[in-house]
Amino acid sequence: MTTVKDSVHDYIELRPMAEALLDTAAMQRLRYVRQLSTVQLVYPSANHTRFEHSLGVYHLASRAVEQLGLEADLADRLRAAALVHDAGHGPFGHQTEAAIERHLGRHHDEIEWLLADTDLGRVLTEYGLEPQAVAATVDGRGPLGELVSGALDVDRMDYLVRDAHHTGVPYGTIDHARLLYALRVVDGELALEDGTVATAESALIARTLMNATVYRHHVSRIAGAMLDRASERLLADGVLKPERFARLTDAELLAAFEEYERTAEFATRIRERDLYKRAIWARRGAVPEDVAGIGYDRTRALEREIADVAGVDPAAVVVDSPTVPSSPESRAKVVVDGEVRRLEELSSLVAGLDACAREIWRLGVYAPEDRLEDVREAAATVLEVDTDAGP
Amino acid sequence: MTTVKDSVHDYIELRPMAEALLDTAAMQRLRYVRQLSTVQLVYPSANHTRFEHSLGVYHLASRAVEQLGLEADLADRLRAAALVHDAGHGPFGHQTEAAIERHLGRHHDEIEWLLADTDLGRVLTEYGLEPQAVAATVDGRGPLGELVSGALDVDRMDYLVRDAHHTGVPYGTIDHARLLYALRVVDGELALEDGTVATAESALIARTLMNATVYRHHVSRIAGAMLDRASERLLADGVLKPERFARLTDAELLAAFEEYERTAEFATRIRERDLYKRAIWARRGAVPEDVAGIGYDRTRALEREIADVAGVDPAAVVVDSPTVPSSPESRAKVVVDGEVRRLEELSSLVAGLDACAREIWRLGVYAPEDRLEDVREAAATVLEVDTDAGP
Amino acid sequence: MTTVKDSVHDYIELRPMAEALLDTAAMQRLRYVRQLSTVQLVYPSANHTRFEHSLGVYHLASRAVEQLGLEADLADRLRAAALVHDAGHGPFGHQTEAAIERHLGRHHDEIEWLLADTDLGRVLTEYGLEPQAVAATVDGRGPLGELVSGALDVDRMDYLVRDAHHTGVPYGTIDHARLLYALRVVDGELALEDGTVATAESALIARTLMNATVYRHHVSRIAGAMLDRASERLLADGVLKPERFARLTDAELLAAFEEYERTAEFATRIRERDLYKRAIWARRGAVPEDVAGIGYDRTRALEREIADVAGVDPAAVVVDSPTVPSSPESRAKVVVDGEVRRLEELSSLVAGLDACAREIWRLGVYAPEDRLEDVREAAATVLEVDTDAGP
Amino acid sequence: MTTVKDSVHDYIELRPMAEALLDTAAMQRLRYVRQLSTVQLVYPSANHTRFEHSLGVYHLASRAVEQLGLEADLADRLRAAALVHDAGHGPFGHQTEAAIERHLGRHHDEIEWLLADTDLGRVLTEYGLEPQAVAATVDGRGPLGELVSGALDVDRMDYLVRDAHHTGVPYGTIDHARLLYALRVVDGELALEDGTVATAESALIARTLMNATVYRHHVSRIAGAMLDRASERLLADGVLKPERFARLTDAELLAAFEEYERTAEFATRIRERDLYKRAIWARRGAVPEDVAGIGYDRTRALEREIADVAGVDPAAVVVDSPTVPSSPESRAKVVVDGEVRRLEELSSLVAGLDACAREIWRLGVYAPEDRLEDVREAAATVLEVDTDAGP
Repeated sequence: MTTVKDSVHDYIELRPMAEALLDTAAMQRLRYVRQLSTVQLVYPSANHTRFEHSLGVYHLASRAVEQLGLEADLADRLRAAALVHDAGHGPFGHQTEAAIERHLGRHHDEIEWLLADTDLGRVLTEYGLEPQAVAATVDGRGPLGELVSGALDVDRMDYLVRDAHHTGVPYGTIDHARLLYALRVVDGELALEDGTVATAESALIARTLMNATVYRHHVSRIAGAMLDRASERLLADGVLKPERFARLTDAELLAAFEEYERTAEFATRIRERDLYKRAIWARRGAVPEDVAGIGYDRTRALEREIADVAGVDPAAVVVDSPTVPSSPESRAKVVVDGEVRRLEELSSLVAGLDACAREIWRLGVYAPEDRLEDVREAAATVLEVDTDAGP
Repeated sequence: MTTVKDSVHDYIELRPMAEALLDTAAMQRLRYVRQLSTVQLVYPSANHTRFEHSLGVYHLASRAVEQLGLEADLADRLRAAALVHDAGHGPFGHQTEAAIERHLGRHHDEIEWLLADTDLGRVLTEYGLEPQAVAATVDGRGPLGELVSGALDVDRMDYLVRDAHHTGVPYGTIDHARLLYALRVVDGELALEDGTVATAESALIARTLMNATVYRHHVSRIAGAMLDRASERLLADGVLKPERFARLTDAELLAAFEEYERTAEFATRIRERDLYKRAIWARRGAVPEDVAGIGYDRTRALEREIADVAGVDPAAVVVDSPTVPSSPESRAKVVVDGEVRRLEELSSLVAGLDACAREIWRLGVYAPEDRLEDVREAAATVLEVDTDAGP
Repeated sequence: MTTVKDSVHDYIELRPMAEALLDTAAMQRLRYVRQLSTVQLVYPSANHTRFEHSLGVYHLASRAVEQLGLEADLADRLRAAALVHDAGHGPFGHQTEAAIERHLGRHHDEIEWLLADTDLGRVLTEYGLEPQAVAATVDGRGPLGELVSGALDVDRMDYLVRDAHHTGVPYGTIDHARLLYALRVVDGELALEDGTVATAESALIARTLMNATVYRHHVSRIAGAMLDRASERLLADGVLKPERFARLTDAELLAAFEEYERTAEFATRIRERDLYKRAIWARRGAVPEDVAGIGYDRTRALEREIADVAGVDPAAVVVDSPTVPSSPESRAKVVVDGEVRRLEELSSLVAGLDACAREIWRLGVYAPEDRLEDVREAAATVLEVDTDAGP
Repeated sequence: MTTVKDSVHDYIELRPMAEALLDTAAMQRLRYVRQLSTVQLVYPSANHTRFEHSLGVYHLASRAVEQLGLEADLADRLRAAALVHDAGHGPFGHQTEAAIERHLGRHHDEIEWLLADTDLGRVLTEYGLEPQAVAATVDGRGPLGELVSGALDVDRMDYLVRDAHHTGVPYGTIDHARLLYALRVVDGELALEDGTVATAESALIARTLMNATVYRHHVSRIAGAMLDRASERLLADGVLKPERFARLTDAELLAAFEEYERTAEFATRIRERDLYKRAIWARRGAVPEDVAGIGYDRTRALEREIADVAGVDPAAVVVDSPTVPSSPESRAKVVVDGEVRRLEELSSLVAGLDACAREIWRLGVYAPEDRLEDVREAAATVLEVDTDAGP
């Protein structure tokens, strides 16, 4: 077995299958997609990529399958799925996925097409794995698929620790080794062994704190919303086919923006960190029910409406109304007195953390600094946001 | 300025006053008192001492007073108080403090006597500081005393991070630099600046998680309760004067136990990690109100009563009914929209964390392995604990 | 002062001048230039950028000027120079600098033109700094310029630690705080105080070990030599002006290679990590004097000659004959018994480390896997390399 | 398997045999013997114990035997030997071993007697291991005994990293995982695989740098020499039997010193860090051949002679003339082109590091501050040290 040195897990041992998968263009591309996309504009050290994250997830999956003593076939399928789980991600990860889903009709966790069309599928077959089964596992389906995508999956275990290491923010530093030791298969499903409620809670807490300080930082959100806006233009105007768009790297997407007149300014602004500012930044209570957590099309429509009222170029209005972060971890299963139960039934913290997630939710409307006042007024009117409520 | 290398804060700069204080026997003694006393029986790396912790607290206080731009006199008083804040601790820290308080009538944070009687007072005076004022600061009284002992003091900021570093448990790794940057003096009191609720919450969360996994680990609690029991014997039997007892090091207390017939077995058991086992380990709901969180004298009385019923030697019964951990951090002040408010009014998490603290509370009754059954039965009867409720 | 969180130094305090400099396009560009260019092909976590490194160097310079008590003007000049010291770097850092120097006639440390032509100069002037003086400091000239570029500069102190953090290789973890504390100004020059020979040696050792394991790793060298080769084509064929070339980001250079027929293959190979292999990999002793450490033009000529003899396309031969790494640290000044001396006169290690550097030196000739044998034979003949000597 | 959390290696898995060995008094005693004895007087965080170090060495041995695929019997013997390798250490580790050897005629690595006389032997036998074979392994004899005590043993791999973690000094942070991966058994002996000279050198370098900054720090040496002096008195005066002495903990030895009139002052001085000062501190070149690196009896004789000449109490003179640190690592075996060779034949650094070790060597003569001048003069005369040569 070869080894590769990782800044988080130290040496990672690679089986021949993993090496062969890594040698494909689809996996090498992930070297050029930052794990935290625009977060580096706030935390300058956050330049780690989906490639190293993929190695980390593979490593944790390997440890998990050994610890659980799974049979070789299932173990290999889980390892492979862990390694390729992010191969379907577009450029800038989550920040272009709404645009891609809208135009391509496909979520990044649905990678059947990718396995079918590329070398990834060929390599999997070569090593005796069924590409469709691996794709299902990436999507959390099939036997123990929840190890790769579920309430307490190895994806999350890696990214919390890795994002902490690279931002310098300590909150993500969960005890993933403890979580792995606690894993059990009960009636074909993953559960944490008795006495580990606190361990499960800690992962939930870590994500809540990382949401507040890192993942939902307003500067990163503004840049992300601008990316989303520019992506829509590029795709709606037919400049790039969605299939091609979805396979770009971060830098290639910025270059594509730059080359197209109607998106060039977005590229320059992101590259030079000359971002839009917050015209509106409103808590959940100040926002009408029907504009909180809205979808892609309605966001676009509201942007047009606000631009209209404000009398500004439509590109000068970016609406950003995310859903309240859910907490999949709260559905993690824990054995208590021999019975499998959900963390949310057991933990006194889940409710508090959910409230906390609602608390940090904000509706944002962003605009260039010189149109800020016009957009603020128009947005307040159109969205019926109570701007006296304070941010 | 001289510097000293610390495993947590790297180089710590020492002013001449700090050097002189460190040169006293009262401070050097802290090299021989473990910060986490019996926790090393669970986490073998947890051998850090109150000496290095004192350096760390001094360092954080120094950074805080510089950051706040305090005038030299107050700054020096706070620095000095930070450095000597643990000088009053008895051997094994918190685990003998009930016995010392009972027999000496004095809490370890009341160090007026110590400053008056020892070289510490002389050194303080030499450097133009008023020992009584420093003593008041250690107790959290006087101008900005809360920096040393308060809702979010530098003591806590150091110990959470240090205990995490030395146990290997990541949960204590708070962002203390962020907390220090957020400190403001508002109307003569400390508050965290606007926008830092999440930062304050993180400290509260860190302590709750460290309580669950480290500070209240049952093995450490058993050893601690045994120490408490043996201390009572030594003091009640007049073997050692309480004044002398309170100044021992960890090892000297074990040696004192060993030399006295009625406590020798406790010493051997602790030293060889041959501890009592749990006869009773009951949740809050299974325990009658009047035996939850009981005081020193009542604990001793119940032990005698249980031993009587069980027909065992009184030393074979150890009752451990702690108070539910309070969360002083929830009273931390945070500025919101220009107004100073308490964290508990602002944070959705405080209630959840309080519930969590109640959740991990346990009443313990401990006994030697060969008397376990007898003691279990007698304790259930005497304490009216519902033993069917499960641990 | 604002602060920014760094994964290596934790919070870095930014003066207004630093913030203004960072807001320029010239500095923001460094977010897209990896500090270790192709090393990420070996150490997948090594994705840190020259932007975060620049922040780190600024931070260490700030600490140094405070510690040395320098007057405000000089202090500000050193801080500014530290922050912008890498602004002149081309894409992929050192791996394109020979091509740029050849075609542009300018080294990346000569940034007068950059300060004159861009917003950087304007900002410096705004804050009362003379751009030419800052440029001289970047180049190590003028008062205490050696703090930024010299035998033991803050550039090196940062990159050793940062590269260790991001590769996961521990050897670079020097005690930079100790080095900073040891700095003194003696007769206008920097020297380390008495008793710090071991501290100075440690930096020298760290770089030697990092050279062996990271900086001169053969996979990274192959990719780097391929970049150099492709750069030459792009520039020699006039596809890009050298001025434009020097201002690209890493990704933009790869894109430029891709768009030009004669360099497209290089781009694909680097991107997909489908690199040339080693046809020749020879120790110093197996290589004639006149082909060891050769310059740019001679390298190109030899490549053509080898290709000719081998009967392969000239692009299929890449010659890589670096100079033996020098050790600037060995000229660091240390005070011994009141006298300033060079580390190399004091240290028993310098000779050993120099021998070590020669020991790890290798001449490389690289070729596509399917032309390996032909190129090996031709290269051995043309370069007169003793291929029996073993690698 | 149970696990225990370690601050250096995270979770350590314990086989039942290891758990049973740890449950003995002989192993529990190591919780009260500091790994770096008096180094904590310089680096206040260096309070880690031989207990946690023993766990670490066991862990690395476990990884090594798995990686080498050894058969179960040999693997278990190596694991057991790794775990108990320090059980024979006296109080304060190396700093009393000369006194113990002189009076007991036994080195701490000879633990046959310990395995024969205590529960350790019983447990080993219970788990099918031959105590004598384990004892031989601890001493580096028998099949692969060099894994536990040899040129590059797991003992060293653990202590370098652990001492770095706890002192905060980075130099010991070697890449032990890389060393373990490189291990091979060639003709029944351990060797590092081809291409790992730099890895082997790094361990050698790490120890040289740790010697200079930590292990041979003068404050620690003074305290150590005082311990040695007091130990001699206690043993020579028959206050304690050497067998009993050798089994004390650190604190028990200090207590024993305190209780005996002729050693009480040493105890107080060490406890309060009120140490002797350096009367003589001379480089190798200033010291006659026959007083460099002298043995126990001659040291005692010289102390008496100096005290006589100086007209001071014999206890007021402490002579400390250590041997030049050898570098066992330089005899580590490395495979080169299929042949096993010694590191010293391969490495350009070994000579430099040896010179470095001679360079930091110092002869020390220590005395109470108020007798310093008298002792200095007398010592210079008796030892014929050239005091003009500078320290």
